[in-house]
Amino acid sequence: MTASAPTGPLPKYHQLADHCRGAIQAGSLLPGQRMPSLRALMAQHMVSLTTAMQACRLLESEGWLEARPRSGYFVRQPSVGLLAPVNDPPMQRAPDAAQYVGIHAKVSQFLSLGRLQRFKTNLSVARCAPELYPAEALQQAALRSLRHHPDQLVRAAPPQGCLEFREVLAQRALGAGMRLSAGDIQVTNGCTEALNLALRAVANTGDTIAVESPAFYGLLQTLESLGLKALEIPTSPRTGISVDAVELALRTTPGIKAVVVVPYLQNPTGSIMPNAHKQALLRLCQQQDVALIEDDTYSALVDDAVLREEPLRAIKSWDDSGHVLYCASLHKHLAPGLRLGWISGGRWKARVEMLKFAASRGNERLAQMAAASFIGSAAYDRHLRRLRTTLVTQRAQTAQAVSRYFPEGTRLTVPRGGLSLWVELPQGLSATTLFHAALAEKLVIAPGTIFTNSSRFDSNLRVNCGWPFTPEIDHAFARLGQLVGTLAKTG
Amino acid sequence: MTASAPTGPLPKYHQLADHCRGAIQAGSLLPGQRMPSLRALMAQHMVSLTTAMQACRLLESEGWLEARPRSGYFVRQPSVGLLAPVNDPPMQRAPDAAQYVGIHAKVSQFLSLGRLQRFKTNLSVARCAPELYPAEALQQAALRSLRHHPDQLVRAAPPQGCLEFREVLAQRALGAGMRLSAGDIQVTNGCTEALNLALRAVANTGDTIAVESPAFYGLLQTLESLGLKALEIPTSPRTGISVDAVELALRTTPGIKAVVVVPYLQNPTGSIMPNAHKQALLRLCQQQDVALIEDDTYSALVDDAVLREEPLRAIKSWDDSGHVLYCASLHKHLAPGLRLGWISGGRWKARVEMLKFAASRGNERLAQMAAASFIGSAAYDRHLRRLRTTLVTQRAQTAQAVSRYFPEGTRLTVPRGGLSLWVELPQGLSATTLFHAALAEKLVIAPGTIFTNSSRFDSNLRVNCGWPFTPEIDHAFARLGQLVGTLAKTG
Ligand SMILES: Cc1ncc(COP(=O)(O)O)c(C=O)c1O
Ligand SMILES: Cc1ncc(COP(=O)(O)O)c(C=O)c1O
Repeated sequence: MTASAPTGPLPKYHQLADHCRGAIQAGSLLPGQRMPSLRALMAQHMVSLTTAMQACRLLESEGWLEARPRSGYFVRQPSVGLLAPVNDPPMQRAPDAAQYVGIHAKVSQFLSLGRLQRFKTNLSVARCAPELYPAEALQQAALRSLRHHPDQLVRAAPPQGCLEFREVLAQRALGAGMRLSAGDIQVTNGCTEALNLALRAVANTGDTIAVESPAFYGLLQTLESLGLKALEIPTSPRTGISVDAVELALRTTPGIKAVVVVPYLQNPTGSIMPNAHKQALLRLCQQQDVALIEDDTYSALVDDAVLREEPLRAIKSWDDSGHVLYCASLHKHLAPGLRLGWISGGRWKARVEMLKFAASRGNERLAQMAAASFIGSAAYDRHLRRLRTTLVTQRAQTAQAVSRYFPEGTRLTVPRGGLSLWVELPQGLSATTLFHAALAEKLVIAPGTIFTNSSRFDSNLRVNCGWPFTPEIDHAFARLGQLVGTLAKTG
Repeated sequence: MTASAPTGPLPKYHQLADHCRGAIQAGSLLPGQRMPSLRALMAQHMVSLTTAMQACRLLESEGWLEARPRSGYFVRQPSVGLLAPVNDPPMQRAPDAAQYVGIHAKVSQFLSLGRLQRFKTNLSVARCAPELYPAEALQQAALRSLRHHPDQLVRAAPPQGCLEFREVLAQRALGAGMRLSAGDIQVTNGCTEALNLALRAVANTGDTIAVESPAFYGLLQTLESLGLKALEIPTSPRTGISVDAVELALRTTPGIKAVVVVPYLQNPTGSIMPNAHKQALLRLCQQQDVALIEDDTYSALVDDAVLREEPLRAIKSWDDSGHVLYCASLHKHLAPGLRLGWISGGRWKARVEMLKFAASRGNERLAQMAAASFIGSAAYDRHLRRLRTTLVTQRAQTAQAVSRYFPEGTRLTVPRGGLSLWVELPQGLSATTLFHAALAEKLVIAPGTIFTNSSRFDSNLRVNCGWPFTPEIDHAFARLGQLVGTLAKTG
């Protein structure tokens, strides 16, 4: 059983749509060109008329095609393909000095401004709309668990986590190539606690940790709260952290205790590390005897098209020396209302368990039991498949909106999965300025500056595509585009 | 509304039993003496025959009286009163040097030995039997919450905790004299996380924290995990931490960042700090500008007899300078299966909230909603009253068993509330040796040595009285007593 590969084949029309989308992305079909007719598609791909029509409708809803009355489907213009991707960072620059993170004030200002007012549209969060999660199935699982174990609320739960839950997690981990037993797994309060435990297991106050740049702001806050220094490593929006830059950093900066990476759908860029990079990074950490903290919060949201090319592989799956501390979360793909994550601590397993016990004791039973029951069922695979398909559409719609409304010169990286887009404003315009201008109109975005302890990424923003693309959201992007246009003129 | 005082008057027979128990404890009625006849009790206290009989039966079940056929009730011999209380520590001794805690290996050895095997009787835990908690009411509250908010498992919960829950907690805090608003409260994963946040808010790695000696082993583990030094302060089994010794320590040891105390039913001794001590300690911390971390895990279990003398007063209730970080838990008195606690951080409020967010994000909603609904109802008061009454009985029965079965010279402190007794073996016998001997017979106790980083308290043990006193438990104490007897001969 695998965690993320579909259990059955995709419907035909999805396969066809995947194929055509690929052709558009690869430039074989150019914007403005007419699509092959339905009849041609039927003949070429040996599918029914219904299948051909469904595929075209799907691509239309995603914004790749437009239907012109009596003329058939055309590749849409201006298309996502026309926005240049966000540039890779200069990989050869001398590394920053490792520094204590002083990001809390900055981030909390953005967070609290974003929370304070009743906003119209919040594009700053990193999760999906509640209706995209299996609320009812989880509710039923919780109700069942409460009825079957009526006294579970008054019985202390095991410190490592419930065995049933850890067994299901271990089984699912096989889907990313990891052979773990339930005993290798420590349940945590989300990936946030897992990351805290991993960092505390391998480093002490004052030590240096190598992180991606830009990085998940929560990680930077955690580093700050633990008194750790961050060394920001150039990270490509396509292929993730630069392994060469990590190597250079390990050679030139003494006392680096760990490297933290998000190999799949990095936050905020959405990059995916190629397997060769993952293996090279692991070898490097093994050679230098440095801990490798793998944050796997998002892999369940990787597009099926990617999975068909290459199945998921966690770095942990190649780890024969115990250098990898693997951290995961159910927050983004299963249930934002459950605080469930887990860690497999490798050679630091015992220390991780001790730290968890001393930090918060074991997690509550009910959430674990509800999650175990759902994750152990075929409904989990169905949910993930549906969610990923929905995200393909929403991501395309959102990318369309950005390319339609934002001024020329805007750059956009559309990740191959997940629920965020990474945008770069033209002319070095400041996304912090945009943040404040948008806030005045009750729109919230995540400015790039919260993802770094440096002054970089001020021209970037992360926008959410986890919500169904409503006219309201379309309007928000239109308004954002106007605001950027105004900045471009006045700035 | 108060957290802990009964909402209505106690039944008459309880009041009468309280009175008679007090007379026995005070020595006005000596072991072996005949109790006043039922008729005399009726006349003296103006109660019915039923009431007099119920009172005597209660005292009999608690082990204070025994019924002799045709002769009436007699004060029991040997009685609890005959075991001398555990000695106060020498208060004048020069303070220990502050030291890094190295307790994890020791404690985890005991914990894992105690967990490993299937034991017959576990007297080492610090909570009550599951059947003494309101399992069904909490289950119903959770079911209701799930039905009313079916999508709560898929909606992110607020970082500070659910407003409904914090409002109920603030209201209940009035019962210990604290005027807090919901905004002053941060919900945590148990008191364990609250203590972690409090310590991290006020101290950095390498700093020194003054703690009770003996102290809750979990606190010592937390100090160790955070790289903090502990300064153990002499603590009386009756009146808690020595304020004079704290004063001396603050004067002579530089860099103490906080004092941690459990004013009510200290773990393991069960001591209760007199109000005058609490106020003196607060003044001292204010003058020296040192944080005072108040761990209020147990006050809901203080005997009603004590509450009738003097209502609960948290140190926090006198805190006009924000020096107190108040930490609480629902674990011991409401639901060991919920990981719910809270902290009110005083002048460190913002830092506590930041640390909580960076450590684990907000708590899950469901447990908070279930707890809020129960705590906000009259059933909560009824539950607490029943639980406290039950504990009076179980404590007396357990104390009887110790005094019946343990050899002469054993000392015993019977706290005025709670679920543990603190025992001292005669002749300086080692409770660690007893631990291992007992384990071989599948009995588990908590040896005194896990409550200190020093070599003190090796003659002490903490025994649980949170379970109904069954023949099996009676047997366990009989066997423990024999083991101590054997040690006394061979040692
Ligand atoms: C990369 C990454 N890691 C960890 C987390 C935190 O996960 P959790 O909610 O499970 O604590 C997030 C959430 O935004 C994230 O983006
Ligand atoms: C004095 C004291 N504080 C805190 C705790 C931990 O409480 P919680 O289970 O709420 O984390 C305990 C539990 O034994 C305790 O005895």
